[in-house]
Amino acid sequence: MKVGERHYRTVWMQDSSVFLIDQTLLPFKFEVCEAKTYLETCKAIKDMVVRGAGAIGATAGYAMAQAFIQSDDDMDFIESARHDIESTRPTAQNLFYATSRVYNAAKSGYSVEAAIKEAQRIAYEDAEACRKIGECGASLIKDGFGIETHCNAGWLAFVDYGTALSPIYKVHSEGKKTIVYVDETGPRGQGAKLTAWELQNENVPYMILPDTAGADLMKTGKINLVIVGADRIAANGDTANKIGTYQKAILAEHFVIPFYSAAPTSTIDVNCKSGKEIPVEHRSADEVLYQTGQTRDGRIESVLVCAPGASVHNPAFDVTPAELITGIVTEKGIIKPTEEEIMKLFEAK
Amino acid sequence: MKVGERHYRTVWMQDSSVFLIDQTLLPFKFEVCEAKTYLETCKAIKDMVVRGAGAIGATAGYAMAQAFIQSDDDMDFIESARHDIESTRPTAQNLFYATSRVYNAAKSGYSVEAAIKEAQRIAYEDAEACRKIGECGASLIKDGFGIETHCNAGWLAFVDYGTALSPIYKVHSEGKKTIVYVDETGPRGQGAKLTAWELQNENVPYMILPDTAGADLMKTGKINLVIVGADRIAANGDTANKIGTYQKAILAEHFVIPFYSAAPTSTIDVNCKSGKEIPVEHRSADEVLYQTGQTRDGRIESVLVCAPGASVHNPAFDVTPAELITGIVTEKGIIKPTEEEIMKLFEAK
Repeated sequence: MKVGERHYRTVWMQDSSVFLIDQTLLPFKFEVCEAKTYLETCKAIKDMVVRGAGAIGATAGYAMAQAFIQSDDDMDFIESARHDIESTRPTAQNLFYATSRVYNAAKSGYSVEAAIKEAQRIAYEDAEACRKIGECGASLIKDGFGIETHCNAGWLAFVDYGTALSPIYKVHSEGKKTIVYVDETGPRGQGAKLTAWELQNENVPYMILPDTAGADLMKTGKINLVIVGADRIAANGDTANKIGTYQKAILAEHFVIPFYSAAPTSTIDVNCKSGKEIPVEHRSADEVLYQTGQTRDGRIESVLVCAPGASVHNPAFDVTPAELITGIVTEKGIIKPTEEEIMKLFEAK
Repeated sequence: MKVGERHYRTVWMQDSSVFLIDQTLLPFKFEVCEAKTYLETCKAIKDMVVRGAGAIGATAGYAMAQAFIQSDDDMDFIESARHDIESTRPTAQNLFYATSRVYNAAKSGYSVEAAIKEAQRIAYEDAEACRKIGECGASLIKDGFGIETHCNAGWLAFVDYGTALSPIYKVHSEGKKTIVYVDETGPRGQGAKLTAWELQNENVPYMILPDTAGADLMKTGKINLVIVGADRIAANGDTANKIGTYQKAILAEHFVIPFYSAAPTSTIDVNCKSGKEIPVEHRSADEVLYQTGQTRDGRIESVLVCAPGASVHNPAFDVTPAELITGIVTEKGIIKPTEEEIMKLFEAK
């Protein structure tokens, strides 16, 4: 995807450094930051310089490769590094998928080259899977559709293309007219900040929708489709995604609007039988107490937007039960969220 | 209600001035502002120095009395003033209720005294109705309840006591233990800012709930009751209230949690047959684009929290259909939201 006139990916590796678009500064400043060691890369994941399922996965794969580069063939160092990387964001399935792939590819011969190659392959596969999700999901979108999406499941959340936004970009490139209703997605506002910024860069018409305004808009009939991303999909189709996804799915059911999640098969955790087994990260109260934005004179500042000293409930994700999901758009096609159809994806592999 | 050691009402009139707790500065600064003319009072309503159904109503009544004071017996001036006052916030039923009461009480004899007396009576009745709502609604709350509320329907939204919060204050004074889950209520955050501040002043335990986290929390079973305010109730029980109320009602139905609205009978508009006839105010995009809060060094500042130049959908209210409402708590008792029960309230009067 392009920013200005230059083609970018969200994360890439060059020599022993990982380069990342700094998502904590977007949409106000576009900067690329460099993480020279695996620990710096871990910090970038934890501080949400990079966020989103696929982008976290690719970054974690690169961090694992960095650990091999730094390890001096010391397996204890590598084990400990893997633990550090996997402790950064506990909900993201792609993170564990990436660390284990790089680890397994490299450990037998302590091969730094194999680690780097595998990490690069994960990033390539992520972008390629997202491109295919765009092709598969495009069939869901008719000319003139109003499409609601939650949080950011665009290219910033992956290495390229994105998941929920990929079909939208695809139909846009074919000349179909759509309007995207972008859930603001508090408390961090990734919809209002990141998805809006992405869509603006791609010239896709959109409106930001306050998190309180969903039912009101759905009732008007202006929303024909809801499509969201996923952080982890259990074997039965239950789907963990950004907090607020679950209630959006309940609203979609109430108003009889199709509700799809879009994710590469790497997001599916077949070892996780149902949503009950997905660990959900609770984040700091400060995310709700303070809002970060740009002042009128261009500084980025956090302001307190709650009663001083308030207590806060702040889960980062929720789990949408499979029965509320119309279908899952993967790089291998659109499936129903059932154990049978999910298992078939892996048999075919 | 008390702020610090002093007893306050949200709005009051002294000589020809209207005094208001400045709600645009809360929860960061407590200041009382003075509106010396009806136009200054209109500006206070429009700029949301005062907000909330009953408080707007009382303020509008005072503004109408100020117009009589300023009118010099000029009926054209009064008609024009009434139009100005009624143009400030189109959704609030109490506003029209108050202007017409003061207008009718005073116009026959161009009586300034009658206007002031009627305006004072409206404010007194509002506080008294809210006190009774607390008594009636207390029966809904059992010891140990988790109660979710939306926006601010506390004493800041009325002259005193509030509506949705009045039963909570009542049971708190009787020693019942509850926890109140306060919807943040974007885009303006009146829950996080005003309701949290009120509850803190009253020592009622609470937690702020991001607008995206409702379904997730309801699923845990921690919420036993949802109680919200109302800006206008139609004759069939359809209820206009702060944006986000409608989706909360859908969630409550999904999780089989009782959902009550609380309002004085002055909020019921019997001339409005159903929710379709309630005009809904759309407010400026800036309310979503910018968040106002306190910087770490104590200044109140607005920061841009969306992609620069973003388009925004920003309705201020939504209409919850009667069938999603378990009951309406009024000063005359708890009723079912049906035309029959609503009409009975007015026959009994």
